[in-house]
Amino acid sequence: MLGLKLETDPRWVNIVEKNISEILTDHAYCEQKAATNALSIMISYPYHTDLVVEMVKLAKEELTHFELVHQKINERGLTLGFERKDEYVGELYKFMRKGHKKEIVLIDRLLFGAMIEARSCERFKLLSEQINDEDLKLFYRDLMISEANHYTLFIRFARKYGSHVEDIDLRWQQWLSYEAELVKNYSKKETIHG
Amino acid sequence: MLGLKLETDPRWVNIVEKNISEILTDHAYCEQKAATNALSIMISYPYHTDLVVEMVKLAKEELTHFELVHQKINERGLTLGFERKDEYVGELYKFMRKGHKKEIVLIDRLLFGAMIEARSCERFKLLSEQINDEDLKLFYRDLMISEANHYTLFIRFARKYGSHVEDIDLRWQQWLSYEAELVKNYSKKETIHG
Repeated sequence: MLGLKLETDPRWVNIVEKNISEILTDHAYCEQKAATNALSIMISYPYHTDLVVEMVKLAKEELTHFELVHQKINERGLTLGFERKDEYVGELYKFMRKGHKKEIVLIDRLLFGAMIEARSCERFKLLSEQINDEDLKLFYRDLMISEANHYTLFIRFARKYGSHVEDIDLRWQQWLSYEAELVKNYSKKETIHG
Repeated sequence: MLGLKLETDPRWVNIVEKNISEILTDHAYCEQKAATNALSIMISYPYHTDLVVEMVKLAKEELTHFELVHQKINERGLTLGFERKDEYVGELYKFMRKGHKKEIVLIDRLLFGAMIEARSCERFKLLSEQINDEDLKLFYRDLMISEANHYTLFIRFARKYGSHVEDIDLRWQQWLSYEAELVKNYSKKETIHG
């Protein structure tokens, strides 16, 4: 699915099911952080007009998703908790080439985004199929489709602004391999990337 | 206007008119920074559910304004530039009480927001009345109304979550006095708060 080399251990869903409050709070902040990340890319490359347009649109969509998750939290009589550290994303961040020329950094910033969207999409798919909660099953099916679209958006921009610098497919395969190694240590916590 | 103790020197409009590209780029980032600031307040006080709802809604509205400004930039054959440092906002930031208990910090974070919205509103009003550009006159009239609403939103939350701690009107007067001193040194640059 989306090229991922290792599937999430399905027992992760059983961990999530036992702590809906925790997964929803973590999920809300995933959406907020995705919005913040899109804005951060925009700020760094203001001269790529189409990238600016799409990153701001993406940020707004992520914030709309935040609102949807927040509504689910409130409907269930819960309250949004504090932000959770996302170790998985922290580990992905380490794979980005920093201090290189701006085009190289842009490729990795876009593939970093694509990677998070791809894994989130896979996790949402698993929830939509297996979580023991009919309401959340439907909820995650809809969101899964959005994540797949965001993945495509990031890959498209990486090709557009990076293909003259390096082979994007090759670099994406490196990202996928790195991520597959990482994910072996996950599927253990009640967070979206835990 | 909105309690401001010192009006902007109207000659500021003449400076702005001479560099539309500069004011529009600066304005775009004002909207983005307002969105980021709203999200940052939300993250710090997730347990105030109505504040979370309104701050995320505000962030989305600010990003919609970013899009409108970006369209104006593109329509005129210009390109968004890099982010400008906002010295005025940096000086306002210094007036916030930090390291106090969370309720006190929240009051100042909200009044900091209200202050920026109030001054932006006054600046937009001036542009809507005096800029020698019919298209931008109308543009800034619409945005002026939004800024006034955001000002009201921040003041309302400061009263709701701060009135049990201190006299919000008194603290707001202190903010207004501090800002009036600051603004004596401004009205000289082609930025929204310059």
